[in-house]
Amino acid sequence: MPMQKPSNRDQVTLALIQMSVSADAKANLANAIKRIGEAAAKGAQIVCLPELFRSLYFCQEEDASNFSLAEAIPGETTAALSRAARKSGVVIIAGVFEKRARGLYHNSAVVIDADGRLLGTYRKMHIPDDPHFYEKFYFAPGDLGFKAYKTRYGTIGILICWDQWYPEAARLTALRGAQILFYPTAIGSLPGEERAAKEMRAAWETIQRSHGIANGVFVAAVNRVGAEGEMDFWGSSFVSGPFGEVIAKAGPSRDEILIAKCDLGKIDSTRHDWPFLRDRRIDAYDGIASRFLDKED
Amino acid sequence: MPMQKPSNRDQVTLALIQMSVSADAKANLANAIKRIGEAAAKGAQIVCLPELFRSLYFCQEEDASNFSLAEAIPGETTAALSRAARKSGVVIIAGVFEKRARGLYHNSAVVIDADGRLLGTYRKMHIPDDPHFYEKFYFAPGDLGFKAYKTRYGTIGILICWDQWYPEAARLTALRGAQILFYPTAIGSLPGEERAAKEMRAAWETIQRSHGIANGVFVAAVNRVGAEGEMDFWGSSFVSGPFGEVIAKAGPSRDEILIAKCDLGKIDSTRHDWPFLRDRRIDAYDGIASRFLDKED
Repeated sequence: MPMQKPSNRDQVTLALIQMSVSADAKANLANAIKRIGEAAAKGAQIVCLPELFRSLYFCQEEDASNFSLAEAIPGETTAALSRAARKSGVVIIAGVFEKRARGLYHNSAVVIDADGRLLGTYRKMHIPDDPHFYEKFYFAPGDLGFKAYKTRYGTIGILICWDQWYPEAARLTALRGAQILFYPTAIGSLPGEERAAKEMRAAWETIQRSHGIANGVFVAAVNRVGAEGEMDFWGSSFVSGPFGEVIAKAGPSRDEILIAKCDLGKIDSTRHDWPFLRDRRIDAYDGIASRFLDKED
Repeated sequence: MPMQKPSNRDQVTLALIQMSVSADAKANLANAIKRIGEAAAKGAQIVCLPELFRSLYFCQEEDASNFSLAEAIPGETTAALSRAARKSGVVIIAGVFEKRARGLYHNSAVVIDADGRLLGTYRKMHIPDDPHFYEKFYFAPGDLGFKAYKTRYGTIGILICWDQWYPEAARLTALRGAQILFYPTAIGSLPGEERAAKEMRAAWETIQRSHGIANGVFVAAVNRVGAEGEMDFWGSSFVSGPFGEVIAKAGPSRDEILIAKCDLGKIDSTRHDWPFLRDRRIDAYDGIASRFLDKED
Protein backbone atom coordinates (compact mmCIF):
# COMPACT_ATOMS: atom_id res chain seq x y z
CA MET A 1 0.00 0.00 0.00
CA PRO A 2 1.22 3.53 -0.74
CA MET A 3 2.26 5.50 2.28
CA GLN A 4 -0.41 7.80 3.55
CA LYS A 5 0.50 11.46 3.36
CA PRO A 6 0.22 12.93 6.84
CA SER A 7 -3.28 14.30 7.17
CA ASN A 8 -2.99 17.97 7.85
CA ARG A 9 -6.66 18.71 7.54
CA ASP A 10 -6.66 20.95 10.61
CA GLN A 11 -4.16 23.36 9.05
CA VAL A 12 -5.71 25.92 6.73
CA THR A 13 -4.29 29.09 5.25
CA LEU A 14 -6.65 32.00 4.62
CA ALA A 15 -6.16 35.05 2.44
CA LEU A 16 -8.28 38.16 2.85
CA ILE A 17 -8.16 40.39 -0.22
CA GLN A 18 -8.40 43.89 1.20
CA MET A 19 -8.89 46.00 -1.92
CA SER A 20 -9.99 49.34 -3.26
CA VAL A 21 -12.39 49.36 -6.18
CA SER A 22 -13.15 51.69 -9.07
CA ALA A 23 -16.24 52.42 -11.15
CA ASP A 24 -14.99 49.86 -13.71
CA ALA A 25 -16.67 46.54 -12.87
CA LYS A 26 -14.52 44.59 -15.33
CA ALA A 27 -11.31 46.03 -13.91
CA ASN A 28 -12.45 45.23 -10.36
CA LEU A 29 -13.07 41.61 -11.33
CA ALA A 30 -9.74 41.36 -13.14
CA ASN A 31 -7.97 42.88 -10.15
CA ALA A 32 -9.68 40.45 -7.78
CA ILE A 33 -8.72 37.46 -9.92
CA LYS A 34 -5.12 38.64 -10.14
CA ARG A 35 -4.97 38.91 -6.37
CA ILE A 36 -6.55 35.50 -5.90
CA GLY A 37 -3.68 34.11 -7.98
CA GLU A 38 -1.16 35.97 -5.85
CA ALA A 39 -2.81 34.69 -2.67
CA ALA A 40 -2.73 31.12 -3.96
CA ALA A 41 0.96 31.54 -4.77
CA LYS A 42 1.46 32.50 -1.14
CA GLY A 43 -0.17 29.26 -0.03
CA ALA A 44 -3.73 30.44 0.55
CA GLN A 45 -6.40 27.75 0.48
CA ILE A 46 -9.48 29.86 1.23
CA VAL A 47 -9.61 33.35 -0.26
CA CYS A 48 -12.22 35.95 0.68
CA LEU A 49 -13.08 39.14 -1.25
CA PRO A 50 -14.95 42.10 0.26
CA GLU A 51 -18.69 42.75 0.08
CA LEU A 52 -19.96 43.93 -3.34
CA PHE A 53 -16.37 44.04 -4.62
CA ARG A 54 -17.35 44.53 -8.28
CA SER A 55 -18.56 48.12 -7.85
CA LEU A 56 -18.17 51.28 -5.89
CA TYR A 57 -20.31 51.22 -2.74
CA PHE A 58 -23.35 52.58 -4.57
CA CYS A 59 -25.57 52.47 -1.47
CA GLN A 60 -24.27 55.90 -0.50
CA GLU A 61 -27.27 57.22 -2.41
CA GLU A 62 -30.67 55.94 -3.51
CA ASP A 63 -30.54 55.78 -7.30
CA ALA A 64 -32.52 53.18 -9.23
CA SER A 65 -30.01 53.23 -12.07
CA ASN A 66 -27.65 51.30 -9.77
CA PHE A 67 -29.83 48.21 -10.11
CA SER A 68 -28.12 47.76 -13.48
CA LEU A 69 -25.01 46.72 -11.52
CA ALA A 70 -26.74 43.56 -10.32
CA GLU A 71 -26.39 40.15 -11.93
CA ALA A 72 -27.73 36.64 -11.58
CA ILE A 73 -26.16 33.86 -9.53
CA PRO A 74 -24.71 31.94 -11.29
CA GLY A 75 -23.60 34.68 -13.64
CA GLU A 76 -20.60 36.49 -15.01
CA THR A 77 -18.88 36.95 -11.66
CA THR A 78 -19.39 33.41 -10.40
CA ALA A 79 -18.27 31.97 -13.76
CA ALA A 80 -15.04 33.95 -13.69
CA LEU A 81 -14.39 33.11 -10.04
CA SER A 82 -15.13 29.43 -10.63
CA ARG A 83 -12.42 29.38 -13.28
CA ALA A 84 -10.04 31.13 -10.89
CA ALA A 85 -10.86 28.70 -8.07
CA ARG A 86 -10.30 25.67 -10.30
CA LYS A 87 -7.12 27.10 -11.76
CA SER A 88 -5.55 27.86 -8.37
CA GLY A 89 -7.24 25.10 -6.37
CA VAL A 90 -8.58 27.54 -3.80
CA VAL A 91 -11.94 28.10 -2.17
CA ILE A 92 -13.31 31.58 -2.97
CA ILE A 93 -15.85 33.67 -1.05
CA ALA A 94 -17.06 36.78 -2.83
CA GLY A 95 -19.75 39.40 -2.47
CA VAL A 96 -22.24 39.61 -5.34
CA PHE A 97 -25.03 42.13 -5.98
CA GLU A 98 -27.62 39.50 -6.82
CA LYS A 99 -30.50 40.04 -9.23
CA ARG A 100 -32.92 37.31 -8.23
CA ALA A 101 -35.87 38.42 -10.34
CA ARG A 102 -36.97 41.59 -12.05
CA GLY A 103 -37.11 44.17 -9.25
CA LEU A 104 -35.87 41.76 -6.56
CA TYR A 105 -32.28 42.10 -5.39
CA HIS A 106 -30.08 40.80 -2.58
CA ASN A 107 -26.73 41.68 -1.08
CA SER A 108 -25.25 38.21 -1.41
CA ALA A 109 -22.01 36.31 -1.18
CA VAL A 110 -21.14 33.06 -2.88
CA VAL A 111 -18.82 30.28 -1.85
CA ILE A 112 -17.02 28.43 -4.63
CA ASP A 113 -15.17 25.24 -3.79
CA ALA A 114 -11.59 24.57 -4.82
CA ASP A 115 -12.79 22.53 -7.83
CA GLY A 116 -14.71 25.52 -9.16
CA ARG A 117 -18.15 24.29 -8.10
CA LEU A 118 -20.59 26.90 -6.76
CA LEU A 119 -21.25 25.48 -3.29
CA GLY A 120 -23.85 27.98 -2.17
CA THR A 121 -25.12 31.49 -1.80
CA TYR A 122 -25.65 33.47 1.39
CA ARG A 123 -28.06 36.39 1.25
CA LYS A 124 -27.36 39.11 3.80
CA MET A 125 -29.94 38.75 6.54
CA HIS A 126 -29.54 42.05 8.43
CA ILE A 127 -29.93 45.06 6.14
CA PRO A 128 -28.76 48.46 7.43
CA ASP A 129 -30.17 51.84 6.61
CA ASP A 130 -28.18 54.81 7.81
CA PRO A 131 -26.99 57.98 6.13
CA HIS A 132 -24.67 56.85 3.29
CA PHE A 133 -25.64 53.20 3.86
CA TYR A 134 -29.07 53.13 2.20
CA GLU A 135 -29.18 49.40 1.79
CA LYS A 136 -32.87 48.95 2.55
CA PHE A 137 -33.58 50.76 -0.74
CA TYR A 138 -31.62 48.20 -2.75
CA PHE A 139 -31.75 44.84 -1.02
CA ALA A 140 -34.52 42.55 0.12
CA PRO A 141 -33.56 40.86 3.41
CA GLY A 142 -32.10 37.40 2.92
CA ASP A 143 -34.44 34.41 3.10
CA LEU A 144 -31.93 31.56 3.15
CA GLY A 145 -31.07 31.79 6.84
CA PHE A 146 -27.70 31.10 8.41
CA LYS A 147 -25.71 28.28 6.90
CA ALA A 148 -22.41 26.45 6.89
CA TYR A 149 -20.63 25.16 3.79
CA LYS A 150 -18.33 22.14 3.66
CA THR A 151 -15.44 23.19 1.48
CA ARG A 152 -12.33 21.23 0.61
CA TYR A 153 -10.42 23.08 3.32
CA GLY A 154 -12.93 23.32 6.14
CA THR A 155 -16.52 24.04 7.06
CA ILE A 156 -17.13 27.75 6.87
CA GLY A 157 -19.90 30.29 7.36
CA ILE A 158 -20.53 33.55 5.54
CA LEU A 159 -22.11 36.63 7.06
CA ILE A 160 -22.04 40.08 5.50
CA CYS A 161 -21.13 43.42 7.09
CA TRP A 162 -24.14 44.59 9.20
CA ASP A 163 -24.66 40.94 10.21
CA GLN A 164 -21.48 41.32 12.22
CA TRP A 165 -23.28 43.22 14.96
CA TYR A 166 -25.68 40.34 15.66
CA PRO A 167 -24.57 37.56 18.02
CA GLU A 168 -27.54 35.49 16.84
CA ALA A 169 -26.16 35.35 13.31
CA ALA A 170 -22.76 34.13 14.47
CA ARG A 171 -24.29 31.63 16.89
CA LEU A 172 -26.64 30.07 14.35
CA THR A 173 -23.86 29.80 11.78
CA ALA A 174 -21.54 28.17 14.32
CA LEU A 175 -24.30 25.78 15.42
CA ARG A 176 -24.50 24.70 11.76
CA GLY A 177 -20.90 23.58 12.13
CA ALA A 178 -18.96 26.53 10.72
CA GLN A 179 -15.39 26.64 12.02
CA ILE A 180 -14.47 29.92 10.38
CA LEU A 181 -16.89 32.84 10.07
CA PHE A 182 -16.15 35.06 7.07
CA TYR A 183 -17.45 38.63 7.09
CA PRO A 184 -17.13 40.32 3.67
CA THR A 185 -17.58 43.97 4.57
CA ALA A 186 -17.77 47.55 3.30
CA ILE A 187 -17.49 49.84 6.29
CA GLY A 188 -16.01 53.30 6.56
CA SER A 189 -16.47 56.73 8.01
CA LEU A 190 -17.44 60.20 6.82
CA PRO A 191 -15.60 63.52 7.20
CA GLY A 192 -15.85 64.92 10.70
CA GLU A 193 -16.38 61.46 12.15
CA GLU A 194 -12.68 60.79 12.78
CA ARG A 195 -13.02 60.50 16.54
CA ALA A 196 -16.18 58.44 16.39
CA ALA A 197 -14.60 56.37 13.62
CA LYS A 198 -11.83 55.29 15.96
CA GLU A 199 -14.37 54.12 18.54
CA MET A 200 -16.50 52.54 15.83
CA ARG A 201 -13.56 50.61 14.43
CA ALA A 202 -12.67 49.40 17.92
CA ALA A 203 -16.25 48.29 18.51
CA TRP A 204 -16.35 46.66 15.07
CA GLU A 205 -13.30 44.58 15.90
CA THR A 206 -14.45 43.84 19.46
CA ILE A 207 -17.85 42.47 18.51
CA GLN A 208 -16.48 40.24 15.78
CA ARG A 209 -13.74 38.86 18.02
CA SER A 210 -16.46 38.23 20.61
CA HIS A 211 -18.32 35.98 18.16
CA GLY A 212 -15.15 33.92 17.93
CA ILE A 213 -14.98 33.69 21.72
CA ALA A 214 -18.65 32.87 22.30
CA ASN A 215 -18.57 30.10 19.72
CA GLY A 216 -14.96 28.95 19.83
CA VAL A 217 -14.40 29.60 16.12
CA PHE A 218 -12.12 31.60 13.85
CA VAL A 219 -13.35 34.92 12.46
CA ALA A 220 -12.15 36.54 9.22
CA ALA A 221 -13.34 40.07 8.45
CA VAL A 222 -12.52 41.49 5.00
CA ASN A 223 -13.08 45.18 4.38
CA ARG A 224 -12.47 47.40 1.37
CA VAL A 225 -10.14 50.43 1.48
CA GLY A 226 -9.97 53.79 -0.21
CA ALA A 227 -12.09 56.88 -0.57
CA GLU A 228 -15.37 56.74 -2.49
CA GLY A 229 -17.03 60.13 -2.56
CA GLU A 230 -17.01 61.30 1.03
CA MET A 231 -16.70 57.82 2.46
CA ASP A 232 -13.33 56.58 3.65
CA PHE A 233 -13.32 52.78 3.94
CA TRP A 234 -11.14 51.82 6.87
CA GLY A 235 -9.63 48.48 5.82
CA SER A 236 -8.28 46.89 9.03
CA SER A 237 -9.25 43.42 7.84
CA PHE A 238 -8.31 40.79 10.41
CA VAL A 239 -8.41 37.17 11.43
CA SER A 240 -8.98 36.13 15.05
CA GLY A 241 -8.85 32.76 16.76
CA PRO A 242 -11.25 30.92 19.05
CA PHE A 243 -9.88 32.76 22.11
CA GLY A 244 -10.64 36.03 20.31
CA GLU A 245 -6.93 36.62 19.82
CA VAL A 246 -5.98 38.56 16.68
CA ILE A 247 -3.83 36.34 14.45
CA ALA A 248 -3.31 38.74 11.54
CA LYS A 249 -4.38 42.29 10.81
CA ALA A 250 -4.15 44.56 7.77
CA GLY A 251 -3.57 48.30 7.78
CA PRO A 252 -6.31 50.93 7.50
CA SER A 253 -5.67 52.38 4.09
CA ARG A 254 -3.98 50.32 1.40
CA ASP A 255 -4.61 47.28 -0.77
CA GLU A 256 -3.25 44.22 0.97
CA ILE A 257 -3.41 40.45 0.85
CA LEU A 258 -3.67 39.34 4.47
CA ILE A 259 -2.47 35.78 4.99
CA ALA A 260 -3.37 33.86 8.16
CA LYS A 261 -2.55 30.27 9.05
CA CYS A 262 -5.24 28.69 11.20
CA ASP A 263 -5.06 25.47 13.16
CA LEU A 264 -8.64 24.25 13.34
CA GLY A 265 -7.57 21.85 16.08
CA LYS A 266 -7.52 24.89 18.36
CA ILE A 267 -11.32 24.81 18.18
CA ASP A 268 -11.30 21.52 20.07
CA SER A 269 -8.80 22.65 22.68
CA THR A 270 -10.50 25.99 23.24
CA ARG A 271 -13.93 24.38 23.57
CA HIS A 272 -12.44 21.87 26.00
CA ASP A 273 -11.09 24.65 28.19
CA TRP A 274 -14.25 26.72 27.82
CA PRO A 275 -17.15 24.37 27.18
CA PHE A 276 -19.68 27.10 26.45
CA LEU A 277 -21.65 24.98 24.00
CA ARG A 278 -22.21 22.38 26.72
CA ASP A 279 -23.91 24.79 29.09
CA ARG A 280 -26.21 26.78 26.81
CA ARG A 281 -29.68 27.13 28.40
CA ILE A 282 -31.61 26.18 25.28
CA ASP A 283 -34.71 25.76 27.43
CA ALA A 284 -34.61 29.46 28.30
CA TYR A 285 -33.81 31.34 25.09
CA ASP A 286 -37.26 31.53 23.52
CA GLY A 287 -37.63 35.27 24.01
CA ILE A 288 -34.76 35.84 21.56
CA ALA A 289 -37.34 35.69 18.78
CA SER A 290 -39.18 38.70 20.21
CA ARG A 291 -38.64 42.28 19.11
CA PHE A 292 -38.63 43.48 22.74
CA LEU A 293 -39.83 41.92 25.97
CA ASP A 294 -41.81 44.85 27.31
CA LYS A 295 -45.12 43.08 27.75
CA GLU A 296 -45.91 41.57 31.12
CA ASP A 297 -45.84 37.81 31.08
CA MET B 1 -45.42 75.73 43.74
CA PRO B 2 -41.96 74.70 44.85
CA MET B 3 -39.36 74.79 42.16
CA GLN B 4 -38.75 71.44 40.60
CA LYS B 5 -35.26 70.12 41.13
CA PRO B 6 -33.70 69.54 37.71
CA SER B 7 -34.40 65.95 36.77
CA ASN B 8 -31.09 64.24 36.23
CA ARG B 9 -32.50 60.79 35.89
CA ASP B 10 -30.12 59.84 33.09
CA GLN B 11 -27.05 60.40 35.28
CA VAL B 12 -26.19 57.49 37.52
CA THR B 13 -23.07 56.74 39.51
CA LEU B 14 -22.04 53.12 39.97
CA ALA B 15 -19.66 51.61 42.49
CA LEU B 16 -18.15 48.18 42.02
CA ILE B 17 -16.79 46.74 45.26
CA GLN B 18 -13.77 44.72 44.16
CA MET B 19 -12.85 42.85 47.33
CA SER B 20 -10.93 39.95 48.75
CA VAL B 21 -12.70 37.68 51.20
CA SER B 22 -11.72 35.48 54.11
CA ALA B 23 -13.13 32.34 55.67
CA ASP B 24 -15.01 34.55 58.16
CA ALA B 25 -18.50 35.10 56.72
CA LYS B 26 -19.38 37.73 59.35
CA ALA B 27 -16.23 39.69 58.62
CA ASN B 28 -16.88 39.55 54.88
CA LEU B 29 -20.37 40.96 55.39
CA ALA B 30 -19.10 43.68 57.72
CA ASN B 31 -16.37 44.58 55.25
CA ALA B 32 -18.88 44.74 52.40
CA ILE B 33 -21.20 47.00 54.39
CA LYS B 34 -18.33 49.28 55.33
CA ARG B 35 -17.37 49.60 51.68
CA ILE B 36 -20.95 50.24 50.64
CA GLY B 37 -20.92 53.19 53.05
CA GLU B 38 -17.66 54.44 51.57
CA ALA B 39 -19.04 54.08 48.06
CA ALA B 40 -22.17 56.03 49.00
CA ALA B 41 -19.99 58.77 50.47
CA LYS B 42 -18.28 58.99 47.09
CA GLY B 43 -21.62 59.56 45.41
CA ALA B 44 -22.47 56.02 44.34
CA GLN B 45 -26.15 55.30 43.70
CA ILE B 46 -25.93 51.66 42.62
CA VAL B 47 -23.39 49.46 44.38
CA CYS B 48 -22.47 45.95 43.26
CA LEU B 49 -20.65 43.29 45.28
CA PRO B 50 -18.95 40.22 43.76
CA GLU B 51 -20.45 36.76 43.34
CA LEU B 52 -20.77 34.72 46.58
CA PHE B 53 -18.96 37.49 48.46
CA ARG B 54 -19.72 36.06 51.93
CA SER B 55 -17.34 33.13 51.63
CA LEU B 56 -14.19 31.86 50.05
CA TYR B 57 -14.83 30.43 46.60
CA PHE B 58 -15.68 27.00 48.00
CA CYS B 59 -16.41 25.53 44.54
CA GLN B 60 -12.70 24.77 44.14
CA GLU B 61 -13.59 21.38 45.60
CA GLU B 62 -16.63 19.18 45.95
CA ASP B 63 -17.37 19.02 49.67
CA ALA B 64 -20.91 18.65 50.96
CA SER B 65 -20.01 20.43 54.20
CA ASN B 66 -19.94 23.65 52.20
CA PHE B 67 -23.71 23.55 51.86
CA SER B 68 -23.77 24.90 55.41
CA LEU B 69 -22.61 28.22 53.95
CA ALA B 70 -25.94 28.67 52.17
CA GLU B 71 -28.84 30.73 53.48
CA ALA B 72 -32.39 31.59 52.58
CA ILE B 73 -33.48 34.64 50.60
CA PRO B 74 -34.60 36.74 52.39
CA GLY B 75 -32.15 35.90 55.15
CA GLU B 76 -29.30 37.26 57.19
CA THR B 77 -27.40 38.72 54.24
CA THR B 78 -30.38 40.40 52.61
CA ALA B 79 -31.56 41.80 55.96
CA ALA B 80 -28.17 43.37 56.65
CA LEU B 81 -27.87 44.72 53.10
CA SER B 82 -31.41 46.11 53.20
CA ARG B 83 -30.46 48.12 56.27
CA ALA B 84 -27.31 49.33 54.50
CA ALA B 85 -29.26 50.28 51.37
CA ARG B 86 -31.86 52.21 53.38
CA LYS B 87 -29.23 53.91 55.50
CA SER B 88 -27.17 55.10 52.53
CA GLY B 89 -29.99 55.44 50.01
CA VAL B 90 -28.25 53.20 47.48
CA VAL B 91 -29.30 50.28 45.34
CA ILE B 92 -27.31 47.13 46.21
CA ILE B 93 -26.62 44.07 44.08
CA ALA B 94 -25.01 41.17 45.90
CA GLY B 95 -24.24 37.52 45.34
CA VAL B 96 -25.89 35.06 47.74
CA PHE B 97 -25.44 31.30 48.09
CA GLU B 98 -29.13 30.55 48.21
CA LYS B 99 -30.66 27.64 50.11
CA ARG B 100 -34.04 27.28 48.45
CA ALA B 101 -35.09 24.02 50.10
CA ARG B 102 -33.34 21.16 51.87
CA GLY B 103 -30.80 19.89 49.35
CA LEU B 104 -31.66 22.52 46.70
CA TYR B 105 -29.25 25.40 46.23
CA HIS B 106 -28.65 28.21 43.75
CA ASN B 107 -25.86 30.61 42.94
CA SER B 108 -27.98 33.74 43.20
CA ALA B 109 -27.77 37.50 43.36
CA VAL B 110 -30.28 39.87 44.89
CA VAL B 111 -31.15 43.43 44.02
CA ILE B 112 -32.19 45.68 46.89
CA ASP B 113 -33.70 49.06 46.09
CA ALA B 114 -32.50 52.28 47.67
CA ASP B 115 -35.36 52.14 50.21
CA GLY B 116 -34.15 48.76 51.46
CA ARG B 117 -36.83 46.73 49.71
CA LEU B 118 -35.77 43.39 48.20
CA LEU B 119 -36.67 43.94 44.55
CA GLY B 120 -35.80 40.53 43.24
CA THR B 121 -33.52 37.56 42.96
CA TYR B 122 -31.61 36.32 39.95
CA ARG B 123 -30.53 32.69 39.93
CA LYS B 124 -27.45 31.99 37.81
CA MET B 125 -28.66 30.32 34.65
CA HIS B 126 -25.40 29.00 33.18
CA ILE B 127 -23.51 26.78 35.63
CA PRO B 128 -19.85 25.98 34.90
CA ASP B 129 -17.97 22.85 35.75
CA ASP B 130 -14.25 22.95 35.21
CA PRO B 131 -11.27 22.00 37.36
CA HIS B 132 -11.47 24.29 40.45
CA PHE B 133 -14.91 25.56 39.37
CA TYR B 134 -17.09 22.61 40.38
CA GLU B 135 -20.31 24.56 40.42
CA LYS B 136 -22.52 21.84 38.99
CA PHE B 137 -21.99 19.95 42.25
CA TYR B 138 -23.40 22.78 44.33
CA PHE B 139 -25.94 24.72 42.30
CA ALA B 140 -29.11 23.82 40.46
CA PRO B 141 -29.42 25.87 37.27
CA GLY B 142 -31.57 28.95 37.68
CA ASP B 143 -35.25 28.72 36.82
CA LEU B 144 -36.25 32.37 36.94
CA GLY B 145 -34.96 33.32 33.50
CA PHE B 146 -33.42 36.61 32.48
CA LYS B 147 -34.96 39.69 34.04
CA ALA B 148 -34.69 43.43 34.47
CA TYR B 149 -35.33 45.32 37.69
CA LYS B 150 -36.62 48.88 37.93
CA THR B 151 -34.60 50.47 40.68
CA ARG B 152 -34.69 54.05 41.91
CA TYR B 153 -31.66 54.85 39.76
CA GLY B 154 -32.31 52.92 36.57
CA THR B 155 -33.49 49.65 35.12
CA ILE B 156 -30.79 47.05 35.54
CA GLY B 157 -30.10 43.41 34.81
CA ILE B 158 -28.08 40.88 36.78
CA LEU B 159 -26.11 38.01 35.31
CA ILE B 160 -23.50 36.01 37.18
CA CYS B 161 -19.96 35.03 36.09
CA TRP B 162 -20.25 32.11 33.61
CA ASP B 163 -23.37 33.82 32.19
CA GLN B 164 -20.99 36.43 30.80
CA TRP B 165 -19.91 34.12 27.98
CA TYR B 166 -23.45 33.81 26.61
CA PRO B 167 -24.72 36.51 24.23
CA GLU B 168 -28.23 35.11 24.66
CA ALA B 169 -28.24 36.00 28.36
CA ALA B 170 -27.21 39.58 27.70
CA ARG B 171 -29.65 39.94 24.82
CA LEU B 172 -32.66 38.64 26.75
CA THR B 173 -31.84 40.84 29.74
CA ALA B 174 -31.50 43.90 27.50
CA LEU B 175 -34.76 43.06 25.73
CA ARG B 176 -36.40 43.15 29.16
CA GLY B 177 -35.32 46.78 29.34
CA ALA B 178 -32.10 46.60 31.33
CA GLN B 179 -29.87 49.61 30.70
CA ILE B 180 -26.96 48.37 32.78
CA LEU B 181 -25.89 44.72 32.92
CA PHE B 182 -24.19 43.81 36.20
CA TYR B 183 -21.94 40.75 36.30
CA PRO B 184 -20.97 39.75 39.87
CA THR B 185 -18.06 37.41 39.25
CA ALA B 186 -15.43 35.14 40.79
CA ILE B 187 -12.86 34.38 38.13
CA GLY B 188 -9.17 33.70 38.44
CA SER B 189 -6.34 31.54 37.27
CA LEU B 190 -4.20 28.71 38.58
CA PRO B 191 -0.42 28.40 38.85
CA GLY B 192 1.22 27.74 35.51
CA GLU B 193 -1.65 29.38 33.68
CA GLU B 194 -0.11 32.86 33.64
CA ARG B 195 0.12 33.09 29.86
CA ALA B 196 -3.30 31.63 29.28
CA ALA B 197 -4.64 33.83 32.07
CA LYS B 198 -3.63 36.94 30.16
CA GLU B 199 -5.50 35.73 27.08
CA MET B 200 -8.44 34.61 29.22
CA ARG B 201 -8.68 37.99 30.91
CA ALA B 202 -8.58 39.71 27.52
CA ALA B 203 -11.33 37.43 26.22
CA TRP B 204 -13.33 37.95 29.43
CA GLU B 205 -13.25 41.70 28.96
CA THR B 206 -13.86 41.50 25.20
CA ILE B 207 -16.97 39.37 25.40
CA GLN B 208 -18.57 41.49 28.11
CA ARG B 209 -17.83 44.72 26.26
CA SER B 210 -19.36 43.09 23.20
CA HIS B 211 -22.65 42.57 25.05
CA GLY B 212 -22.69 46.31 25.63
CA ILE B 213 -22.10 46.93 21.92
CA ALA B 214 -24.65 44.41 20.64
CA ASN B 215 -27.35 45.78 22.92
CA GLY B 216 -26.35 49.42 23.34
CA VAL B 217 -26.17 49.16 27.13
CA PHE B 218 -23.69 49.70 29.95
CA VAL B 219 -21.85 46.72 31.40
CA ALA B 220 -20.45 46.49 34.94
CA ALA B 221 -18.31 43.47 35.82
CA VAL B 222 -17.31 43.02 39.47
CA ASN B 223 -14.68 40.44 40.33
CA ARG B 224 -13.04 39.41 43.59
CA VAL B 225 -9.28 39.66 44.19
CA GLY B 226 -6.70 37.77 46.18
CA ALA B 227 -5.37 34.26 46.45
CA GLU B 228 -7.58 31.45 47.76
CA GLY B 229 -5.71 28.17 47.84
CA GLU B 230 -4.08 27.89 44.43
CA MET B 231 -6.55 30.23 42.75
CA ASP B 232 -5.53 33.80 42.06
CA PHE B 233 -8.61 35.95 41.43
CA TRP B 234 -7.71 38.56 38.86
CA GLY B 235 -9.83 41.59 39.82
CA SER B 236 -9.86 43.89 36.78
CA SER B 237 -13.46 44.92 37.45
CA PHE B 238 -14.66 47.39 34.85
CA VAL B 239 -17.53 49.44 33.50
CA SER B 240 -18.05 49.88 29.75
CA GLY B 241 -20.45 52.03 27.79
CA PRO B 242 -22.88 51.30 24.95
CA PHE B 243 -20.08 51.68 22.37
CA GLY B 244 -18.10 49.07 24.29
CA GLU B 245 -15.71 51.76 25.49
CA VAL B 246 -14.16 51.15 28.91
CA ILE B 247 -15.22 53.95 31.28
CA ALA B 248 -13.48 52.76 34.43
CA LYS B 249 -11.25 49.85 35.31
CA ALA B 250 -9.78 48.48 38.53
CA GLY B 251 -6.39 46.85 38.97
CA PRO B 252 -5.75 43.11 39.01
CA SER B 253 -4.81 42.51 42.60
CA ARG B 254 -6.07 44.81 45.33
CA ASP B 255 -9.29 45.78 47.06
CA GLU B 256 -10.79 48.74 45.32
CA ILE B 257 -13.99 50.71 45.04
CA LEU B 258 -14.41 51.47 41.36
CA ILE B 259 -16.61 54.49 40.70
CA ALA B 260 -18.13 55.12 37.27
CA LYS B 261 -20.48 57.89 36.20
CA CYS B 262 -22.85 56.75 33.49
CA ASP B 263 -25.07 58.89 31.28
CA LEU B 264 -27.96 56.62 30.36
CA GLY B 265 -28.88 59.11 27.63
CA LYS B 266 -25.95 57.66 25.70
CA ILE B 267 -28.08 54.57 25.21
CA ASP B 268 -30.47 56.59 23.04
CA SER B 269 -27.72 58.28 21.04
CA THR B 270 -25.80 55.05 20.50
CA ARG B 271 -28.89 53.16 19.42
CA HIS B 272 -29.74 56.02 17.06
CA ASP B 273 -26.32 55.79 15.42
CA TRP B 274 -26.37 52.00 15.42
CA PRO B 275 -30.00 50.84 15.30
CA PHE B 276 -29.23 47.17 15.84
CA LEU B 277 -32.47 46.51 17.70
CA ARG B 278 -34.45 47.76 14.69
CA ASP B 279 -32.95 45.23 12.29
CA ARG B 280 -32.94 42.01 14.31
CA ARG B 281 -34.23 39.10 12.18
CA ILE B 282 -36.61 37.75 14.80
CA ASP B 283 -38.24 35.61 12.11
CA ALA B 284 -34.98 33.72 11.62
CA TYR B 285 -33.58 33.04 15.09
CA ASP B 286 -35.54 29.93 16.04
CA GLY B 287 -32.57 27.58 15.84
CA ILE B 288 -31.00 29.39 18.81
CA ALA B 289 -32.99 27.10 21.06
CA SER B 290 -31.25 24.03 19.63
CA ARG B 291 -28.19 22.37 21.13
CA PHE B 292 -26.56 22.05 17.70
CA LEU B 293 -27.92 22.24 14.17
CA ASP B 294 -26.33 19.12 12.79
CA LYS B 295 -29.50 17.39 11.63
CA GLU B 296 -30.59 17.92 8.05
CA ASP B 297 -33.67 20.07 7.76
